[in-house]
Amino acid sequence: MPGKGFVSNIARQSEDFPGWYNDVVRKAELADYSPVRGCMVIRPYGYAIWESMRDELDRHIKRTGHQNVYFPLFVPRSLLEKEAEHVEGFDPQVAWVTRAGGEELSEWLAIRPTSEAIIAEVVKDWIQSYRDLPLLLNQWNNVVRWELRTRLFLRTAEFLWQEAHTFHATEQEAADEVATGLEAYRAVSEDWLAIPVIKGRKTENEKFPGAVYSTSIEAMMRDTKALQAGTSHMLGQNFARSAGIDFLDRDNQLKAPFGTSWGFSTRMVGATIMAHGDASGLILPPNVAPHQVVVVPIFRSEDDRAAVAGAIERLETGLADVSTASGPLRLWVDWREETPGFKFNHWELRGVPFRLEIGPRDVAAGQAVIVRRVDRLKETLPLDSLAAELPKRLADYQAHLFQRAIDFRTANTHHVDDMEAFERTVEEDGGFIHAPWCGDGACEKRVSEKTGATIRIIPFDAADESGRCLVDGKPSERRVLLARAY
Amino acid sequence: MPGKGFVSNIARQSEDFPGWYNDVVRKAELADYSPVRGCMVIRPYGYAIWESMRDELDRHIKRTGHQNVYFPLFVPRSLLEKEAEHVEGFDPQVAWVTRAGGEELSEWLAIRPTSEAIIAEVVKDWIQSYRDLPLLLNQWNNVVRWELRTRLFLRTAEFLWQEAHTFHATEQEAADEVATGLEAYRAVSEDWLAIPVIKGRKTENEKFPGAVYSTSIEAMMRDTKALQAGTSHMLGQNFARSAGIDFLDRDNQLKAPFGTSWGFSTRMVGATIMAHGDASGLILPPNVAPHQVVVVPIFRSEDDRAAVAGAIERLETGLADVSTASGPLRLWVDWREETPGFKFNHWELRGVPFRLEIGPRDVAAGQAVIVRRVDRLKETLPLDSLAAELPKRLADYQAHLFQRAIDFRTANTHHVDDMEAFERTVEEDGGFIHAPWCGDGACEKRVSEKTGATIRIIPFDAADESGRCLVDGKPSERRVLLARAY
Repeated sequence: MPGKGFVSNIARQSEDFPGWYNDVVRKAELADYSPVRGCMVIRPYGYAIWESMRDELDRHIKRTGHQNVYFPLFVPRSLLEKEAEHVEGFDPQVAWVTRAGGEELSEWLAIRPTSEAIIAEVVKDWIQSYRDLPLLLNQWNNVVRWELRTRLFLRTAEFLWQEAHTFHATEQEAADEVATGLEAYRAVSEDWLAIPVIKGRKTENEKFPGAVYSTSIEAMMRDTKALQAGTSHMLGQNFARSAGIDFLDRDNQLKAPFGTSWGFSTRMVGATIMAHGDASGLILPPNVAPHQVVVVPIFRSEDDRAAVAGAIERLETGLADVSTASGPLRLWVDWREETPGFKFNHWELRGVPFRLEIGPRDVAAGQAVIVRRVDRLKETLPLDSLAAELPKRLADYQAHLFQRAIDFRTANTHHVDDMEAFERTVEEDGGFIHAPWCGDGACEKRVSEKTGATIRIIPFDAADESGRCLVDGKPSERRVLLARAY
Repeated sequence: MPGKGFVSNIARQSEDFPGWYNDVVRKAELADYSPVRGCMVIRPYGYAIWESMRDELDRHIKRTGHQNVYFPLFVPRSLLEKEAEHVEGFDPQVAWVTRAGGEELSEWLAIRPTSEAIIAEVVKDWIQSYRDLPLLLNQWNNVVRWELRTRLFLRTAEFLWQEAHTFHATEQEAADEVATGLEAYRAVSEDWLAIPVIKGRKTENEKFPGAVYSTSIEAMMRDTKALQAGTSHMLGQNFARSAGIDFLDRDNQLKAPFGTSWGFSTRMVGATIMAHGDASGLILPPNVAPHQVVVVPIFRSEDDRAAVAGAIERLETGLADVSTASGPLRLWVDWREETPGFKFNHWELRGVPFRLEIGPRDVAAGQAVIVRRVDRLKETLPLDSLAAELPKRLADYQAHLFQRAIDFRTANTHHVDDMEAFERTVEEDGGFIHAPWCGDGACEKRVSEKTGATIRIIPFDAADESGRCLVDGKPSERRVLLARAY
């Protein structure tokens, strides 16, 4: 196995997954701790990955008729407290500005943990009639939730995200919008990040504070734990009523609009790392990889160097107009003064899909050695075939990583019918467990207290299936998805 | 003059420029006040304008080798206070988080007014050797400066911007970088926003707190006042020394790197409004206009409607692949149930470069009426010429607005040599005034106290010219640029 000796001193993925994750994030220079407790610094390589998924999601958001806006960072305390469940859910995590401009503020300002409260207050003036609906807004911004235990990308006191906020004349339209948001997240996760997801509804205990119901997509990480990869909420008329929004409907009646909100965050950079990575570090899907192909020149003498440099220059010219599914081919030539072995290891740690090795004998033969990151499959290809081959191989690799993740999830998904089997499966196998549940919140709490596994979602595609609840044996109509989760 | 009766109740630009500005911003739905003192809400139309200039500047930033990153929103008090001039400059404007997660914080956290302090502290660990330099970072984010008197886009407590932060081995490299940043701003202002600018150096009194020197570009608004449209600062070794950054140079000596920072903000949306707008509202350069062409269908009967709709549909198909300097042609068809006059006024207020009027007689004749926003120049064009004509006309219109702004600036630029003439020019004519100054900060203060006009910059292209200072008559070597300013 090439490069084994070089494994960059990252913790073993198979033995210490959290240690492996932290090492990869820091040593591949994706992010780092900061002088502010719980806040991270996103470094260039990590930010480029975020930009790629952000831009792809932004295209989905615009294509489905949403418009970008910007609302203030601050939410006055009185506004945050208008919706009772909402304030109860977020108050313990709020960071408060109490002084500004050299004075105590007469009203404290929350750093937004999310923007439902301030947006409802503002759009009250924009929504007068059914003609003003639907109102489909989105913003990309930073939010703050004071977390006690933080992890780079996965849970940080400040994070970057997108929050869509929409208002509709009817409940049905709002329900359709909740689905539109979730579908955008599925598309970005599966088609861009190669992470398969399961859509479903959250339980009452797990829904967004202030929502009527919440939906999410759930993904499996390489340690078989679940990660919630995007949430979309039906707010009903809750926030509209609290803020006093009403509109004159076609039937000449004043009504409160129905709202939705949905969010997707820098957490998904963490998900991308944990869904694909292996013992040597990151494995990036080509759509999101900052470098899709890295060229490592190999030479000893100055003459060889010149020959290799000439060939690489011709190659770069030949590849200048090559397109991939995510835009122009992103090729990088590593001319640093380091050994080839150092470079192989450097780019393997960073998850670059393909590396091209070009030495003097390759130049003479008009060929290059291409090595695929995920399985180190090595082939020799004619240099003049690369303009045609690379886009195809990148597309195949993208599909391959997606299938690999599906296969991994399938291999780690279990169906159990009673508590004893459930506990054993959680402890011995982990993974996703589909099991019957009666719908009672008390049973839900019992399971999580006993096993640490929680009901992730009630999958939308769960078939009707009579059974008996894992906990109290009462009738269950379908299986829910349980797992230990991030 | 069409549409005159409709002028949307905006204040007269010629009599009340600030009132006109505020009306345009609010009635064209660019931005609005928010429930948080001094903070604004950027609405879809205003945000689309910001996105356009942001994306264009981001392309410049990346093309010149900078990488995007993200640093925390919070700056611990002890870090903000490390650089003495810096804290003195910003402390009065800081918003402080003193409580979070239900507890008093042991150390207050500033909401970043700018990020020099926290970035220097973090990159200390990234910079060990000359090989780690230059370090060219940029971030797009929100900052907060508690302002007493705020104006939408121009001066708000929170604003969006880009802040580049770079570190270099030599002073010369850093000086070149200061110029690179300023040149990016010139290019976006002139080539994208059609706003001519003058580059120059700020005086000692006006430089960035903590900088060695500051440079800026200055633009003229339609009321002849100046607006600083982007600043680029030489930080020297100030922040590096305060944070204790050092690197091992090629000569094996430990040295502090030289820093720069440069920023460009949502203020430029305000500049775009004020540099081009007229009595009827916004005038947008095509590169930045969310809609470049709006089609207004004109019909009375249902039959006419059908004929017009058919022609517009064919037109849209024919224009689907048309490109402009700022991407695919942005065409909007206004099918709202309103009168043509209402729509003309609506889109004039919003500054759309061209409107196309298509009625049944036009359809029969295979033509459309095209009206250019800036001067209401009206022409009739064959429908099948539009795919070729529109990109050309948009490019011409972009150039025309730039030339119009240059002409306006030229007509409102004055050269004076003594205080009496200066005072009279400021009062009676306004505009840009080039006058001799000895370089003494006391004279600078005197001028601004007496006239409200300030030294904007010492223009880079100011010719050597012996003269006597406006204020104290001491020798002056070149003229400086003075103006009343935003």
